[in-house]
Amino acid sequence: MAKRSKSAARARSVRSAPRPRVTRSALPVGNAAVGQSGGPTAVINQSLVGVIEELRTFKAVKKTFGMRHGVSGLTHDPAELIDCKRLSAAELERVATTPSAILGSSRDKPDAAYCEKIFAACRANNIRYFFYIGGNDSSDTCRIVSELAQARGYDMRCFHVPKTVDNDLMLSDHTPGFPSAARFNALAFMSDSMDNASLPGVKINVVMGRHAGFLTAAAALARGEGGFKDRNGPHLIYLPEVPFDSDRFAADVQAVYDRLGRCQIAVSEGIQDAQGRPIITTLMERLDKDAHGNVQLSGVGALGDALADVVKKRVKSKSGKPVRVRADTFGYLQRCWPDPSPVDSKEARLAGREAVKLAKRGEVSGSIAIQRASSKPYKAKLVKIELRDVAAKTRHMPTEFFKGSNDVSDKFIAWCKPLVGPLPRMVRVDELI
Amino acid sequence: MAKRSKSAARARSVRSAPRPRVTRSALPVGNAAVGQSGGPTAVINQSLVGVIEELRTFKAVKKTFGMRHGVSGLTHDPAELIDCKRLSAAELERVATTPSAILGSSRDKPDAAYCEKIFAACRANNIRYFFYIGGNDSSDTCRIVSELAQARGYDMRCFHVPKTVDNDLMLSDHTPGFPSAARFNALAFMSDSMDNASLPGVKINVVMGRHAGFLTAAAALARGEGGFKDRNGPHLIYLPEVPFDSDRFAADVQAVYDRLGRCQIAVSEGIQDAQGRPIITTLMERLDKDAHGNVQLSGVGALGDALADVVKKRVKSKSGKPVRVRADTFGYLQRCWPDPSPVDSKEARLAGREAVKLAKRGEVSGSIAIQRASSKPYKAKLVKIELRDVAAKTRHMPTEFFKGSNDVSDKFIAWCKPLVGPLPRMVRVDELI
Repeated sequence: MAKRSKSAARARSVRSAPRPRVTRSALPVGNAAVGQSGGPTAVINQSLVGVIEELRTFKAVKKTFGMRHGVSGLTHDPAELIDCKRLSAAELERVATTPSAILGSSRDKPDAAYCEKIFAACRANNIRYFFYIGGNDSSDTCRIVSELAQARGYDMRCFHVPKTVDNDLMLSDHTPGFPSAARFNALAFMSDSMDNASLPGVKINVVMGRHAGFLTAAAALARGEGGFKDRNGPHLIYLPEVPFDSDRFAADVQAVYDRLGRCQIAVSEGIQDAQGRPIITTLMERLDKDAHGNVQLSGVGALGDALADVVKKRVKSKSGKPVRVRADTFGYLQRCWPDPSPVDSKEARLAGREAVKLAKRGEVSGSIAIQRASSKPYKAKLVKIELRDVAAKTRHMPTEFFKGSNDVSDKFIAWCKPLVGPLPRMVRVDELI
Repeated sequence: MAKRSKSAARARSVRSAPRPRVTRSALPVGNAAVGQSGGPTAVINQSLVGVIEELRTFKAVKKTFGMRHGVSGLTHDPAELIDCKRLSAAELERVATTPSAILGSSRDKPDAAYCEKIFAACRANNIRYFFYIGGNDSSDTCRIVSELAQARGYDMRCFHVPKTVDNDLMLSDHTPGFPSAARFNALAFMSDSMDNASLPGVKINVVMGRHAGFLTAAAALARGEGGFKDRNGPHLIYLPEVPFDSDRFAADVQAVYDRLGRCQIAVSEGIQDAQGRPIITTLMERLDKDAHGNVQLSGVGALGDALADVVKKRVKSKSGKPVRVRADTFGYLQRCWPDPSPVDSKEARLAGREAVKLAKRGEVSGSIAIQRASSKPYKAKLVKIELRDVAAKTRHMPTEFFKGSNDVSDKFIAWCKPLVGPLPRMVRVDELI
């Protein structure tokens, strides 16, 4: 859109013609609905508030409904809807700074029959503007609902607002929710590295991210400035995009331990072997699967414990004493910790507002992507992308962000750093003496 | 000491006699050594800096040595000692705000032969003032070293500075390190409760604390103000002091789940059955033990995963759908998260200074305890206690802090609240509609 505005301005200056009003089609008058879907984040409520506050100045919209638990609440009989227009500015601000999905979220992935129910509920409630905040599964729901409405001749505008700590949406530089989760991991690895230097040993920390390694990679920010990379953890980083091999893992850990007498390791919960099998599936007999057929990777400590066992069996100390090995799985705190990245809070809010601006401009459907204009100083813009380009697709780490089989590149660090906000400056004893 | 000063003042005012100078014995002239021991905390470096800065104005002390990894570094040949007096005020301030034990910590528990080595190292380095920051094992080390020095006629003054996230030191209202770890847990449970309301299910969070339940109990602060106790988690709290029974646990969870459709649970890693056996020992075949014979409870996810299995097998939903169950083990972040309680930072610093003041005053040995003067407004004082009264003893939660078999009392919350600092105000959807 920034691009479009620029060319529109150029057109004006050249031809001195009045700027054409963008009216793709007449704006239907009716109600709006907004919902949250997928795993919550620290800033998904910012996006919700962005949608609600921008809708207040949209004359075609009468009522603003909040769906309880996304399309799950919408398709209840009667539909579970909350009147969001009556919330005061002060209440909205409290909502915006509360982590989690305040309306309730959903893991449902509607099939054809489910979509019929959504459609019926929208028609019954005269919903003409549908906003769905979520990840790639959620954008797919949005796309299906949009196509169904168009096929039935019901004029409903459907917009997706991006959200995911995994940062795995196509065409985006990054996704609201990711910078705050990255901030949590940077702080966690930084502090935990100091702890591990106090009582040296091997420390494994398992990080969220089923298919994309961005969040695990963000642990590298914990190394800080000043050329102390080799001394501050994480010393090894294992991502789902790079095939994981237990032998190489044990050798990697042994090498760092021999050099430093300790080793801090960032491991993605989604690490896979060369055949693409999640490492966790080789370790657990019974696995929980969600409605999308995904194996439960979060909320269990099994992967960390199994990797700790590998280290206990295979990594040796020079003294012959057993190596101290600990594993933590950072779990759900990564996506809800109440210290969001300031950039993330701001962008999540703007993404919600931008989706409504698309509707105001007469767009029929679309999603929002954050694209970066520059890293130093950090500048980003919000652009419209098509639902089909983001729906049910997964973005992986670009190869330029990897370094070997167990680290990230300087390019990744330069990309990630402006997103997470200021980090504390910690000090090690060998920096002082 | 506050008490002693008061009575001294009273004595002066009544008898108009000059205040007697407290000189238990002539102050030996020589060097000081300070070390850190046991699990690090977010504020143990505050205590270290407190010791160092107070020693700067102690004329009997020539050099201030920092022991690397506590008595472990001291007894190396040559002793691993750092000259702490050359650190600038700015450097000290950076040390103070760095979580972890910057000098390095130790889990060693010296026996008679080890104590001989400590003694030899102290004599060789003309150490006359020995400061050891740690928990109850560390105060025991301090006691043994002090008694050995006295028995050998070597004038060395030994002081313990309290530290432990477990809050299990005798004669203390609370211990430096605990309030910051309690703050982490309050924030974690608060945010995680919102997350669990977004995607409802059973969420188990395992909290540090081998024998004492204070830290697990602090999760209750996440409930916040305003009469929403029943809606904000944690809904159930299991402490090591209350025998744990799997049948009752499953029934408790079922009852909360039936009422709210979700359940957030705080479980201490140290929960035991009626026979005093740690629940984790019934779940794991091979258990790591540290040098003190303690089973490894932290840095493994096994207890959480096993409790999740109990819930998955035994708790049923009304709809017949499987109950969503997740378990997180908060692990080492509890003791190193870089957002310490302001009260804790201040008290940890003062405790370090106070130990040096004991030495200046001519005391031969002792430990520091924080005692509470009032809760509203919060006021505390530091008092001297004897090493033998704190060494190798464990304080448990007083019975007035329990409520039934799965909760804490209002009295506990009133006690704990002033310690953790300001908490954010989060909002649930049912508070707005």
